[in-house]
Amino acid sequence: MKKIYLVGAGPGDPGLITVKGLELIKKADIIIHDRLGASKELLKNAKEGAELIYVGKRPGAHTFKQEEINNILVEKAVDDKIVVRLKGGDPFVFGRGGEEVRAIVRNGIDYEIVPGVTSAISVPELAGIPITDRRYASSFTVATGQEDPTKEEERLDYGKLNADTIVILMGIKNLPKIVGQMLKSRPPETPLALIENGSTKDERVVVTTLGEAVVRAEEEGVRPPAIIVIGEVVRLRSEFGR
Amino acid sequence: MKKIYLVGAGPGDPGLITVKGLELIKKADIIIHDRLGASKELLKNAKEGAELIYVGKRPGAHTFKQEEINNILVEKAVDDKIVVRLKGGDPFVFGRGGEEVRAIVRNGIDYEIVPGVTSAISVPELAGIPITDRRYASSFTVATGQEDPTKEEERLDYGKLNADTIVILMGIKNLPKIVGQMLKSRPPETPLALIENGSTKDERVVVTTLGEAVVRAEEEGVRPPAIIVIGEVVRLRSEFGR
Repeated sequence: MKKIYLVGAGPGDPGLITVKGLELIKKADIIIHDRLGASKELLKNAKEGAELIYVGKRPGAHTFKQEEINNILVEKAVDDKIVVRLKGGDPFVFGRGGEEVRAIVRNGIDYEIVPGVTSAISVPELAGIPITDRRYASSFTVATGQEDPTKEEERLDYGKLNADTIVILMGIKNLPKIVGQMLKSRPPETPLALIENGSTKDERVVVTTLGEAVVRAEEEGVRPPAIIVIGEVVRLRSEFGR
Repeated sequence: MKKIYLVGAGPGDPGLITVKGLELIKKADIIIHDRLGASKELLKNAKEGAELIYVGKRPGAHTFKQEEINNILVEKAVDDKIVVRLKGGDPFVFGRGGEEVRAIVRNGIDYEIVPGVTSAISVPELAGIPITDRRYASSFTVATGQEDPTKEEERLDYGKLNADTIVILMGIKNLPKIVGQMLKSRPPETPLALIENGSTKDERVVVTTLGEAVVRAEEEGVRPPAIIVIGEVVRLRSEFGR
């Protein structure tokens, strides 16, 4: 029986993978993985002789298209081998996990999903920002900061996102556009936090406002991967003693 | 040094707690826990002699107020004891974890957060519904289905939530109200799924539409805890072979 396990690696701290996910890494014959940041430590748990295949971005080198990754998954699925597809965070939060599942299903391969702790929620909370709060936030929206550029029309207008807390992943490069749209519907004093290298010892948090965010991000040299959190909950950081 | 660990238990399947979370359960001297559903299996990992304190809801018996839970946390924090506060899902997704942290910080107690896999994301994906998809969903909103009834004004108007995918937690009791508000801004054909006992062997998925949801939920006898997912991504279930 051919089977692929789609496993979320969590937000960076290797202790934040699930118990099931770590067991699969230990047993895997083949691990096909993205650029995992700090969670690449997890690969040290692979058994001797396991095949590790890197399909993430490589600066200056060939970058795998999603189609190629799908093909590798299908090729590597072999009867009675434990094949793990390891993705950062959760496999279905802007991870294109759905496209991989479709390719797997179309090729008659079995699969199992092992969710991961998403950075969208865990990185703010580890930085002292609860994304929900009974007083300030009964809803939160998570949006990608980088819509697929090949799409015919952009779906996202960040100014229209209206939950109490907004979390943007992969948004640093597009920060001026995101902030510009949001300023059409929210006041410039709206609290905003930028969290770099969340959940790891290199975590850095910049607390600012919607109006000041672009200037502050530049001054502080905030780099991807970083998470943007917008809303009153950012102010709760002081109550968290952070 | 007094210290409390706030640990997320994950969505139900005991294999979906984090590695760090399980280690803490094994080492804990005291575990203060909610009603954990299927993840109550995790408590079997507690060491002999560990004190387990249940502060969840008990039908027909005294229900702990948040204030009382905060007091128990503060009382039970003892120098050099490992005290774990174990909460379902993630501690800060409508879990009132923030209020517990405030009480802990105000009393000069140290704390550490161990995020959990939230049911808001993992339960849909395990049921074959990816909450994001490059074609259909660049954003998702998670909202509570039960706002604090003591609040002066209701913050949530479900009809105004406008991300591509909407996930409502704890919403079965208020389904008619939630659906009624959403029908003001979305067509009745909008796909909707109800997922009961997600991530466990008792999982049950009812796929319907916004217009039919209330009738179908009643016909099928859908009971809490169940998660509501609204949006085009519900249709992707067939591509997931589910």
